[in-house]
Amino acid sequence: MTIAGERTLPDTDPRLEEIFAAHRGGKLATGLTAPLHNDRDLAIVYTPGVAEVSRAIATDPALAAHYTWANRMVAVVSDGTAVLGLGDIGPRAALPVMEGKSALFKAFAGLDSIPIVLDTTDVDEIVETLVRLRPSFGAVNLEDISAPRCFELERRLVAALDCPVMHDDQHGTAIVLLAALRGACAVQGRALAGLRVVISGSGAAGIACARMVLLAGASDVTVLDSRGVLVPGRAGVTGEKAQLAAVTNPRGISGGPAEALVGADVFVGLSGARLPEELLALLAPEAMVFALSNPDPEVTPEVAARHAAIVATGRSDFPNQINNVLAFPGVFRGAFDAGARRITEPMKLAAAAAIFSVASDDLAADSIVPSPFDPRVAPAVAAAVAAAARGDAGSE
Amino acid sequence: MTIAGERTLPDTDPRLEEIFAAHRGGKLATGLTAPLHNDRDLAIVYTPGVAEVSRAIATDPALAAHYTWANRMVAVVSDGTAVLGLGDIGPRAALPVMEGKSALFKAFAGLDSIPIVLDTTDVDEIVETLVRLRPSFGAVNLEDISAPRCFELERRLVAALDCPVMHDDQHGTAIVLLAALRGACAVQGRALAGLRVVISGSGAAGIACARMVLLAGASDVTVLDSRGVLVPGRAGVTGEKAQLAAVTNPRGISGGPAEALVGADVFVGLSGARLPEELLALLAPEAMVFALSNPDPEVTPEVAARHAAIVATGRSDFPNQINNVLAFPGVFRGAFDAGARRITEPMKLAAAAAIFSVASDDLAADSIVPSPFDPRVAPAVAAAVAAAARGDAGSE
Repeated sequence: MTIAGERTLPDTDPRLEEIFAAHRGGKLATGLTAPLHNDRDLAIVYTPGVAEVSRAIATDPALAAHYTWANRMVAVVSDGTAVLGLGDIGPRAALPVMEGKSALFKAFAGLDSIPIVLDTTDVDEIVETLVRLRPSFGAVNLEDISAPRCFELERRLVAALDCPVMHDDQHGTAIVLLAALRGACAVQGRALAGLRVVISGSGAAGIACARMVLLAGASDVTVLDSRGVLVPGRAGVTGEKAQLAAVTNPRGISGGPAEALVGADVFVGLSGARLPEELLALLAPEAMVFALSNPDPEVTPEVAARHAAIVATGRSDFPNQINNVLAFPGVFRGAFDAGARRITEPMKLAAAAAIFSVASDDLAADSIVPSPFDPRVAPAVAAAVAAAARGDAGSE
Repeated sequence: MTIAGERTLPDTDPRLEEIFAAHRGGKLATGLTAPLHNDRDLAIVYTPGVAEVSRAIATDPALAAHYTWANRMVAVVSDGTAVLGLGDIGPRAALPVMEGKSALFKAFAGLDSIPIVLDTTDVDEIVETLVRLRPSFGAVNLEDISAPRCFELERRLVAALDCPVMHDDQHGTAIVLLAALRGACAVQGRALAGLRVVISGSGAAGIACARMVLLAGASDVTVLDSRGVLVPGRAGVTGEKAQLAAVTNPRGISGGPAEALVGADVFVGLSGARLPEELLALLAPEAMVFALSNPDPEVTPEVAARHAAIVATGRSDFPNQINNVLAFPGVFRGAFDAGARRITEPMKLAAAAAIFSVASDDLAADSIVPSPFDPRVAPAVAAAVAAAARGDAGSE
């Protein structure tokens, strides 16, 4: 296949032609919100008219929120260190993903958004850069930043910036997983608190999902990394993993996937590691399998269905797609609508509850979450998040 | 007048209502260039399809130019230190101007553009920030950055970034002034080389205009700052001013505006300082007056016309509007079209020649430059700049 004029890619897949065509020149464009056809328009949009607006903001900085686009604009920020399943491919190769993310903000929540890809992977430098850029945007969606750096980066940005900051690979995933888990529980008439949950993977998404299900009331959560169950004091269990080890694994399991999966009710795959069928067979009856690695789930839905009552993946070509787009557009929209400066735990829980609530009209084993294109989702999430933000405000 | 809901501005001018309405929510929006209506679109624009594009760029970084928007996207960058005639009003108050500039890039040259306003005025930090942001954009238009910092900043960014960088307050103004001067010369049948030129103002625009007219062949240029004629060794004549003092004022004038203006053929006002009529009366017969300060010219066109044959201002409500929008959209468009990494002197001269060439169809004393809305201008400038860039390439 020939792309980019003289350049050639291995012609492995006829789909590629269509994909590359859709990405040619990028997927974003800027446009004007006011007419600009004559001297009069120019004198309003630009000089001398714009001087009145600038003068007013100089006198009262709060007016910037009303007379610039920045107040409701989301910067999608990445350093390209953990892009999709491709790993550390750098900022230039990450940009098509970030443009896509910005496009989703517009398509699903009507929010303007720009991609910012950074040619540094140093956490200090990224914080410093975004602090300097602060007047240019209204919120930060961190994306595809490797663990454990992503935890420190998010924490420091939340402290440094007076606007919503969310690492979507963590919290977007966790919100949608929690919504799906609630949906699955409702289908089966079970309570989250009574389930044994195993989370395989302790990167950004795994850790955030574990925290979220604990926050939502799960009491028996076990987390695996590539060396086995997270246990306090085990080699490699430091930082975020150590914090999680202290509040998970209540039955004191030691060992690997086999030991964790025996009798488990829920498997959440966020590691990319293949899950052999013999391990799946260890799950309790009526189990739920969330094989969320993309594009290759830990186990195919066909195989999983032999051992589980409910199966979800991250893919659009199977039922029960766990897709972050159910959460992040409405979360940021709701935060903006409420004028929130933080995205708090109650706001995330409210987002999950709103997604579940849309799904609950039509719940079934193969329909535990709404379709990403269900037009009710983003407004419901935005309204719930805004309400939670307003409720939080008194306690901040 | 009430704006922004509860807030009130002094109701000094009924125009304000209309201006603030046009700026509400900002003047820019992002949009999608590909459809996003269903699972299939999502799988092409975002995961899993986008992974193919990212993978290809990771293998061959040159592909980023074809499959992202960054390659032809202009970052409009300001620190808010010299905004219009308002001075150092900061990045938040500068943002409406930068949004307007980005809107002009789109309206006049079809280029995507985003405003970046920086919460630092330190030149080192601005350079460092833009170097880190480099993969996010394809060119930098510096705007409203105070002198003399703007000279060092532009010089260092040109060295640090492998993409076009131009401080429009300097070079955009200089390009359009040169085009207008050529137009005025053509109307009068005179040669630029034979004119005595006085430039009042040695900020960003004054210094760039002096350099440009010298580059274009003027041999008798005198520059004034607030203390008088730039002369080597004079107090306050350092840095850029000292460089200029060494190549201007060939008749060794000393003194102030009166000494400089006696017998001068061209007055270029870029200082904002009022020009009293008795000084204007000192000009040679058939003089040209460019009173370019905005929104208040150094002298009104009515008064200037008593002492000059050709009068130009920066305003749209008088003839001969010297407006940067005649230059910058086509300059960046041409640089992109040629794949240029620099905006060179030959490219700027070519831009001025192209503007003059469009005007030359219809030259008159009150029509020395085209209208900003003449649709021939940006394509002509882009073509000329691209040709000059391609011509330069061999000598770089």
